[in-house]
Amino acid sequence: MTPAITVDPLLVERYIMELARFGAVGESGVSRTVYSPEWVQATDQYAAWCREAGLAVRRDAVGNVWGRLEGTDGGRAIVSGSHIDSQRPGGRYDGALGALAGLIALRTLKEQFGAPKRPLECLAFCEEEGSRFPAANFWGSRAINARIAPDEPERLRDYDGVTIGSAMHTVGLDPARIAAAARDDIDTFIELHIEQGPILEHAGLPVGIVTGITGLRHYVVEVSGEANHAGAFPMDLRYDPMAGAAEIIAGVIGTATSLGRPAVTTVGRMRVEPNYPAIIPGKVTFTIDARHPDPQALAQLYASHEAVMREVAQRRGLTINWHSTLDLPPSPSDPATVALLQAAANDLGIPSMLMHSGAGHDSQVMAQRARMAMIFVQSRDGRSHTPEEFTSVEHAVLGITLLAAGLYRLAYTP
Amino acid sequence: MTPAITVDPLLVERYIMELARFGAVGESGVSRTVYSPEWVQATDQYAAWCREAGLAVRRDAVGNVWGRLEGTDGGRAIVSGSHIDSQRPGGRYDGALGALAGLIALRTLKEQFGAPKRPLECLAFCEEEGSRFPAANFWGSRAINARIAPDEPERLRDYDGVTIGSAMHTVGLDPARIAAAARDDIDTFIELHIEQGPILEHAGLPVGIVTGITGLRHYVVEVSGEANHAGAFPMDLRYDPMAGAAEIIAGVIGTATSLGRPAVTTVGRMRVEPNYPAIIPGKVTFTIDARHPDPQALAQLYASHEAVMREVAQRRGLTINWHSTLDLPPSPSDPATVALLQAAANDLGIPSMLMHSGAGHDSQVMAQRARMAMIFVQSRDGRSHTPEEFTSVEHAVLGITLLAAGLYRLAYTP
Repeated sequence: MTPAITVDPLLVERYIMELARFGAVGESGVSRTVYSPEWVQATDQYAAWCREAGLAVRRDAVGNVWGRLEGTDGGRAIVSGSHIDSQRPGGRYDGALGALAGLIALRTLKEQFGAPKRPLECLAFCEEEGSRFPAANFWGSRAINARIAPDEPERLRDYDGVTIGSAMHTVGLDPARIAAAARDDIDTFIELHIEQGPILEHAGLPVGIVTGITGLRHYVVEVSGEANHAGAFPMDLRYDPMAGAAEIIAGVIGTATSLGRPAVTTVGRMRVEPNYPAIIPGKVTFTIDARHPDPQALAQLYASHEAVMREVAQRRGLTINWHSTLDLPPSPSDPATVALLQAAANDLGIPSMLMHSGAGHDSQVMAQRARMAMIFVQSRDGRSHTPEEFTSVEHAVLGITLLAAGLYRLAYTP
Repeated sequence: MTPAITVDPLLVERYIMELARFGAVGESGVSRTVYSPEWVQATDQYAAWCREAGLAVRRDAVGNVWGRLEGTDGGRAIVSGSHIDSQRPGGRYDGALGALAGLIALRTLKEQFGAPKRPLECLAFCEEEGSRFPAANFWGSRAINARIAPDEPERLRDYDGVTIGSAMHTVGLDPARIAAAARDDIDTFIELHIEQGPILEHAGLPVGIVTGITGLRHYVVEVSGEANHAGAFPMDLRYDPMAGAAEIIAGVIGTATSLGRPAVTTVGRMRVEPNYPAIIPGKVTFTIDARHPDPQALAQLYASHEAVMREVAQRRGLTINWHSTLDLPPSPSDPATVALLQAAANDLGIPSMLMHSGAGHDSQVMAQRARMAMIFVQSRDGRSHTPEEFTSVEHAVLGITLLAAGLYRLAYTP
C-alpha cells in the first residue's frame, strides 16, 4: 500500500545547513525573527528551492511562503510545513526542519511519482515563536485561519517598540491585506517538528506520531503575608508567604509527578518582595504551568492545584490570589490521519510510537479548519530553543520519509 | 534598694518628636543616614540637650556624640546609648529612642540624685544601620572598639559611590583619626531599643530584659539542574531545581518551626534563572537566614538545614552549593547586669520578661570590651524599619525608668 520512497540524506543535510546560514549565530545558533533581513533571505531561499523542485510559489499577505503541486483531480489541498522564524538564538531545527520537510517531501514525491491526484502544498510559516513580537505567536497560522484581530498590526510591538504592521511594510507587505491570507480550502495539514523533549531518545525511537497537542494553563499566583524582621519575629507569629509558596510549589510539582506521564507542572518564574535576606517576605508571586493532553485529566490537574493553593493559604493565614494568563484546550490530532501515518510507518518499517505534544505548534491553529496531525523526530538530550539543539540527518530522513508516505496516501491514492 | 525614679513623659515625648524632625519623611517616617545634613542637625540637637542636662559633651573621631557626668569616685564608665542614624525611611524609634533614653536617664538621675560615684555617659552612635554605606554597619561602635580596618574609609562607598572617608570630611571629621575614637575604659554598656518584634505585645508586657543577642548565619544556596521546555519534558526525566528548592525551603522553615522559639529560619530572597513561565529553571538561588541565641542549638540548626539541602539535592540529582555571607556567634549579655536589671524591675514593679534579641545591635560590638545588657520596649505589631513603627510614651517611660534604675545601681551604689 505504501511504495518505497527514497529521501536523499545529502539534500536534507544541505538544506538544513544552508538555511541555517540566514541569521547564523556562532557555531550552530540561529537568530531569525520575523520580517528581519535574515528572515527575508531565508524565505527567498525557501522560495527558490520550491521553484527548483517544480512547485508553483506564492507568498501570502503576511509572508508565509507556499509551494504548490497541482493535483490532476483538484479538490482541497494536502499541506505540510512549519515555521521559518527562530528563537534568538535558537538552533537549526526548531521549525526550519518542518518547513524543509514539507518541501523535500513534495520534491521527492514529484520526482518519484509525478503529479498527485489532489493538490499538495508545502509551507514556511512566517512566524510562530513570538521571539520578536512577544504577543504575535502563530502569526502565520493565525492569518491562514483568519484569527488575527484588526487592531493587532498597530497594537503588537517588538522589543524596540516597532509595530508588527510597520515591520510588515519594511518587507513590502501591507497589513491592510492580512485578511487575504485566510484559506478555507485545506483538507489536511501535517507538520513535522523536532520533539523538543527526551521521550523518543529514551525510547530509542527516531519518530513519533502525535495524537494531539496538550492543553495548558498558565497561572500567576500571588501569596501575601506580613513582611517582618527575620530575627525579631518568632516562627509561630509569622505569616510568611515564602513558607506557603514553597509548600504549594512542592505540592503541585508532587501532584504532577505522582500522576505520571503525560501530566506536567512547572514553576518557572518567581518574584519575592521585598527580596532581602533578613526580611520575611511580604509577597511572593510565581507562575504555575500545568499541562495534559486529555481534557478531563487536565481539568482534574487544575482542580487539584487550586485545592493545594487554597489549603496551604488557609492553614497559614495567608492571602492568595491567582489568575490565568493563558488557557488553551487540548488540540487532538485527526484520528484517521494518525492511523494513516501509523500504517505508513509499519509498511516502511520505520520504528515509531504514538505520543502527544507537550509544546504548542502552528498545528493547533491549523486544526481549527483542517484535519491535523504531526510527526516528531528525535531531539538529542531533548534540547530546543538553544544553539545546542540537534537532530541527526538519519532521523530527519526517516521522519521526512514517513511524511512523504503520508502525503502519498492522501494525495496520490485518496 | 532601688529608689523611686521619676521620668518625665512630656520630656520623653518632646525629645522623640523633635529629634524625628531631622530627616522627617511624610507623617511619621525618618530618613537620616550617617554624615548627611539631617544627621548633622540631629547630632547637634543631641549635643545641645546633653549640655542642657549639665553633661560634658564630646564628639569623637567618627562622630559619635557623648554626654558625660563625672563620678565622685572616678573609675571606668557606665554607658548607655543607641544609634542616631535610621533606615531610609525608618521610623522615629529604632535607635533614636535608645540614644534619648541614655540622655534622659542621666538627666533624670542628675536632677534627682546629684553626682554619681562612678562616671556615667550617654551616647548617640553615629551609624548602625548600614543604610547609606551598605558595608559600614556598626561604624560607631566598631570605632569605639577599634574594629575598623585601615582600608575601610577608602573602600566603603555609599549608593552614589562616595567613600565613607570622603563623607566624613564633608562633616569635618578626619578619617586618619578614626583610631582616636577607641575606648578601653567602659565598664558596662546598657542599650535600650525597641523590640522590633511582637513578643512583648503578645505577652502584654512593656519591657524585656535581653539575655543575649542571637547568633546567625546567612547562607546563599545555589541549586542547579537542567533548564528545559515545560511542556516537552516529562516529570520523571526532569532535574528541576525549583522542585528541589521548594522542598528545601519548606524543610528548613519546618525545622525551625518545629524546634519552636527562639529558633528562626527565613528565606527572604530568591533568584530564578531563566525565570520564564514555560521553562523549567536551570538554576535557583536563594538565601537562608538561620538564628538561635544558644551556640549549641545554633550549630544543630545549621547542621539540620545542611542535611536537608544535601538530602534533597542528592535524591533529585541536582547540584547544590552553599556558602555563608554572614556568620555571627551569639553574644550573651552579662549575667550580673541582667540580674541587676531584673531586680530593679521587681523593685519598681515594672512588668518585664527575659528574652533574647533576634536582631543585631551595637551592643554586640560593645560586648567585646564591656559588660553588656539591653532593655527592650514594646513595638506595636512588632513593626520596625518602616514609618509605621511605634512605641507608646508610656512604655518608653517604663523602659527609661528601668534603665535609670540600673544605671543608679551601677553608678550611685556600686
